[in-house]
Amino acid sequence: MKSLSIKDIAVKANVSITTVSFIINGKAKEKSISEAVIEKVEKIIAESGYKPNQIARSLRTGNSNIIGLIIEDISNSFFSRIARLIEDKAYKRGYKIIYSSTENSVDKAKELINMFKSRKVDAYIISPIKGIEEDVKMLLEDGNPVIFFDRNLPDINTSYVGADHFNASYQSIQSFIDQGKKNIALVTTDINVEQIVERYDGYKKALEDNGIKYDENLVLKIHFNQEESETISQIKQLLEQKKIDAVLFATNYLAISGLKVLKQINKKIGDDFAIIAYDDHEAFELHTPGISTVQQPLEEIAENVIKLILKQLSSKAKPENQQIIIPAKLIIRD
Amino acid sequence: MKSLSIKDIAVKANVSITTVSFIINGKAKEKSISEAVIEKVEKIIAESGYKPNQIARSLRTGNSNIIGLIIEDISNSFFSRIARLIEDKAYKRGYKIIYSSTENSVDKAKELINMFKSRKVDAYIISPIKGIEEDVKMLLEDGNPVIFFDRNLPDINTSYVGADHFNASYQSIQSFIDQGKKNIALVTTDINVEQIVERYDGYKKALEDNGIKYDENLVLKIHFNQEESETISQIKQLLEQKKIDAVLFATNYLAISGLKVLKQINKKIGDDFAIIAYDDHEAFELHTPGISTVQQPLEEIAENVIKLILKQLSSKAKPENQQIIIPAKLIIRD
Repeated sequence: MKSLSIKDIAVKANVSITTVSFIINGKAKEKSISEAVIEKVEKIIAESGYKPNQIARSLRTGNSNIIGLIIEDISNSFFSRIARLIEDKAYKRGYKIIYSSTENSVDKAKELINMFKSRKVDAYIISPIKGIEEDVKMLLEDGNPVIFFDRNLPDINTSYVGADHFNASYQSIQSFIDQGKKNIALVTTDINVEQIVERYDGYKKALEDNGIKYDENLVLKIHFNQEESETISQIKQLLEQKKIDAVLFATNYLAISGLKVLKQINKKIGDDFAIIAYDDHEAFELHTPGISTVQQPLEEIAENVIKLILKQLSSKAKPENQQIIIPAKLIIRD
Repeated sequence: MKSLSIKDIAVKANVSITTVSFIINGKAKEKSISEAVIEKVEKIIAESGYKPNQIARSLRTGNSNIIGLIIEDISNSFFSRIARLIEDKAYKRGYKIIYSSTENSVDKAKELINMFKSRKVDAYIISPIKGIEEDVKMLLEDGNPVIFFDRNLPDINTSYVGADHFNASYQSIQSFIDQGKKNIALVTTDINVEQIVERYDGYKKALEDNGIKYDENLVLKIHFNQEESETISQIKQLLEQKKIDAVLFATNYLAISGLKVLKQINKKIGDDFAIIAYDDHEAFELHTPGISTVQQPLEEIAENVIKLILKQLSSKAKPENQQIIIPAKLIIRD
């Protein structure tokens, strides 16, 4: 597909070249261009493959056209897939993404924010952890666009995009109960972030609503940064010592460790024993039998993140904050 | 573990605090500190968890302490795992890594180099593609440390770290032949980069050395950026229309598509049909049966990349280029 020029875009949107130019250069609000026109033009730009000449644009606007993305761990396939989607979508709109991992360290997260600040990125997309509230507040006070995704910090007044973890977890447990399961374990991590706590809350509430007594011995909280061999031995202990007929794994890497345990102890998934993994992974579809999974809407999360951040970048006044919570999908396999 | 101070490091290394300080601030060469002392101190620093105060260091040295990492695609688990390793190792030495994906686009790769240049990174770690030679030459002429990894550009005079793809591919095919296989297919990509060409060369040479005629109909070159559904239908066609008793998949994502095809057409891996996947993936160990794989030495590649780049950063004169080729390991499963 040949890229459109500014002129082509103007013709297609039925507006003047000047209007398109104002929108591209983030002056739409200042020039009182209506929301409807902005949306129409941005849609055409996104679909057209048009990429503004960045250097020229940087000179005019003083912007870097770079967005900093801060995630937990790039080797986790949830983050690497969403990073790639965000990167693609931003690039099509003339922005580059640079990213780094916090590894759940508050110190490192603070340093990354400072690094991006010193590199003069235009905006921040952050999967936050507790302890960086003050740093984020400072970014916001300085007028920087900031979007949270995947997890939220309730005390911070900014836009957020994420999946509905409570309901996805609740539905997973409900589906176990509907299959007649009663001794349902949860293997989760000990990191104290909202999206993990919500999965735990959904687990507890579903048991309660079905009159099943919550048993803390069936909840295994794995330490975030430990060796996988340690995780495997803890899951093994849980499965061998407790009477369990179903397990919800709260992350895909925990489910992968769990599948390794099942292979080791030769425990089969079937009528007597079911598992669900939170966050899909290529290994789950290929596994025999296929592993049921909670699929987060990666594409929609990425799309909304980019839309919100571009809206902030093109507005003179800070737009109202939005909390976009997207349902996650329970995929039952085999 | 408590972090060591500069004083602790000096005591441990049996050198003066000033010496440690020179090494940390990249003045070791200028101050004629011996290689042996530099190595000893850097090893203690790496093991100690000591993190230099970056802002103070930046002020003193004028450096950003940021290294730019340019990879092909962060959603490919080979790159996301190696990026995480490089990021960890750099962070322990007081450097941050920011990364971006080229998606095999020459335009995007050039833009990323310019972006990192404008953000004043101290050094570049690049998994290069053909077409960016001039841009890299300019970086080198300006005195920037540049390391290539995973793939090389033979015309460019810089250090390189990667696996021995020719031999790994050769050994994979030899192992098929040793099992009595004769109709051996190669499913690879059409991207024209050295590390993919070497896998193809290894395939051809192993057939030739064993007196098996090369048949171009058994080589499927998948277009890099196509939809997975298209890839799946091409692999399906290959497996259904040709007599094939073994397949080497030249990348892990192609092997994953291949496994989906096998599941669809209900073709079993066993005595009559074998596969090997290039680059390990969590799905392969968990698969029933386990999938044999060529494991690249990720840890060693990351370690050597960081060592070479730090050496360049701490040397006044550019150190001699090194080509570090590390053997890959063929892991036969089940």
